[in-house]
Amino acid sequence: MVSRSGPGERPGPAVVALGGGHGLYASLSALRRVTDRLTAVVTVADDGGSSGRLRRELGVLPPGDLRMALAALCGDDEWGQTWRDVVQHRFRSQGELHDHAVGNLLIVALWELLGADAHGSTVAGLDWVGRLLGAQGRVLPMASVPMDIVAEVRGADPSRPDEVTRVKGQVACAKTPGTVLGISLVPTDPPASPEALAAVDEADWVVFGPGSWFTSVLPHLKVPELARALVATKARRAVALNLAQQPGETDDFSPQTHLEVLQAHAPDLRVDVVLADRGVVDDPVALDKAVQDLGGRLVLADVAADDGSPRHDPARLAQAFVKIFRD
Amino acid sequence: MVSRSGPGERPGPAVVALGGGHGLYASLSALRRVTDRLTAVVTVADDGGSSGRLRRELGVLPPGDLRMALAALCGDDEWGQTWRDVVQHRFRSQGELHDHAVGNLLIVALWELLGADAHGSTVAGLDWVGRLLGAQGRVLPMASVPMDIVAEVRGADPSRPDEVTRVKGQVACAKTPGTVLGISLVPTDPPASPEALAAVDEADWVVFGPGSWFTSVLPHLKVPELARALVATKARRAVALNLAQQPGETDDFSPQTHLEVLQAHAPDLRVDVVLADRGVVDDPVALDKAVQDLGGRLVLADVAADDGSPRHDPARLAQAFVKIFRD
Repeated sequence: MVSRSGPGERPGPAVVALGGGHGLYASLSALRRVTDRLTAVVTVADDGGSSGRLRRELGVLPPGDLRMALAALCGDDEWGQTWRDVVQHRFRSQGELHDHAVGNLLIVALWELLGADAHGSTVAGLDWVGRLLGAQGRVLPMASVPMDIVAEVRGADPSRPDEVTRVKGQVACAKTPGTVLGISLVPTDPPASPEALAAVDEADWVVFGPGSWFTSVLPHLKVPELARALVATKARRAVALNLAQQPGETDDFSPQTHLEVLQAHAPDLRVDVVLADRGVVDDPVALDKAVQDLGGRLVLADVAADDGSPRHDPARLAQAFVKIFRD
Repeated sequence: MVSRSGPGERPGPAVVALGGGHGLYASLSALRRVTDRLTAVVTVADDGGSSGRLRRELGVLPPGDLRMALAALCGDDEWGQTWRDVVQHRFRSQGELHDHAVGNLLIVALWELLGADAHGSTVAGLDWVGRLLGAQGRVLPMASVPMDIVAEVRGADPSRPDEVTRVKGQVACAKTPGTVLGISLVPTDPPASPEALAAVDEADWVVFGPGSWFTSVLPHLKVPELARALVATKARRAVALNLAQQPGETDDFSPQTHLEVLQAHAPDLRVDVVLADRGVVDDPVALDKAVQDLGGRLVLADVAADDGSPRHDPARLAQAFVKIFRD
């Protein structure tokens, strides 16, 4: 099941990576080294920066996380690298274009050209940018409509540390003081991407994380159709934990807490493997127990970059995935 | 000299088309059917619309006329047509992106990435967009720096119809009341594009027009280095006249007046062929005499579109060029 390839060819397992932002960029940068059958399913709930402005000005899906995922999959040749640099380029000025990422504008232009209202056009537009980049894999949105994340937060108002309130919007959720208890989406039952549902259904492996836990990793589980597909698929499920806590979202969260939160958002989800960096796990026994409670096994590996930053090293992360997919 | 091709291959003559805007789009749409060795040399004096805003916000060459020329040369396949539609697409909104052409943003992003200050990067960026489009030919700026057109205008102030004043900026020149007598450029001696000089030097044919006479066709002759190259080249020179007078620029201009103005801006320039649409020449004898005064011959042909618009039909214009280049 891990590999459907015949002798002499090695396309690797069919892998679906779920997430958004820098975390998904990291998992895709690793997974593209492991398989030729890679699909990214990406959050579309961003309301900040270039994406938020485009969403408000033009009424489109926020393209930023989709763009980053496409960039992570770009070809290794001069063509792919050059267009990757172009789509990732941001204008810097005192004026109206400041901070817009070129790839965001390109994706939105394709959506407008191909018919912005139809989900098929959304996917077709992303496929065109994928072809431009020579992308090794496909990038899909988790839902066909723009969404907003709503977080339940304890102590969002520091003067009332025990009060639980709701904070709306990805930027607000990521920056709020207090402790995020959980998230939901508005609208509550958005249409999932049919292509994403099919990819999950046909996958050998589904990979959650790393990434901003509440705003990039968990939103997929609050798209009901997608959550059902993730529970029902015969694919194995891996969770790649973060290398650091994220201020605002997951201060003081242990690795176990991340898993508890995951389970709370998708009680029926079974997890086969949890991957954590050896260096950041303080209490491997407790983590191992939490993983077993989810029905899976814990894999500890050195996947952090050497520079001391809380970033995954793509080659090391790839090596860890190779071992996970093989064992 | 018309064709350097051996038997069995027909790359066509080396042609340099000079102009800007819709006029250059028309000549390139025709010339790409005639030769595989086509270079567009494009005005970079626009200060209006998307180009003007980019020029002011980011300090770059106005990209709009360059973009249109690239779009005219796009490949015939789905790839070329799709990316042509993308680069020509304009955002429509109530916000900050309104009216920006996507290709303008793409060109500027490449310039910024490749090093905006160096002329080599300017050309390299245009070459990248050309490769994206599968462009059949090369697009070069007439100069390496943004320019402003200054027009001498009689009666710019309608209350003083005989007064000659100076009007600065392409938009202002194109819209001014009164009669434009001539144009100059600021700066007066800009660095020409070395690649454009080489293309003119190596050309078999150089084609002026059609297009906005004062703001797209004549500016090349006011770039001293480029004007010298256009006079010195062994290439033959063709002038394609417009199908209609242009309000603001050439009201009441006869075809002969267009040629007189051309000669006034480049007294040393010899012209071999003047191409005019049969249907718009009221006085062929007078035009023929004016052409002979320039040292050339007049070619009358049906090159207008059938729909009654003052647009050239690409196939008919191509046919006329084939005949001109052959005879």
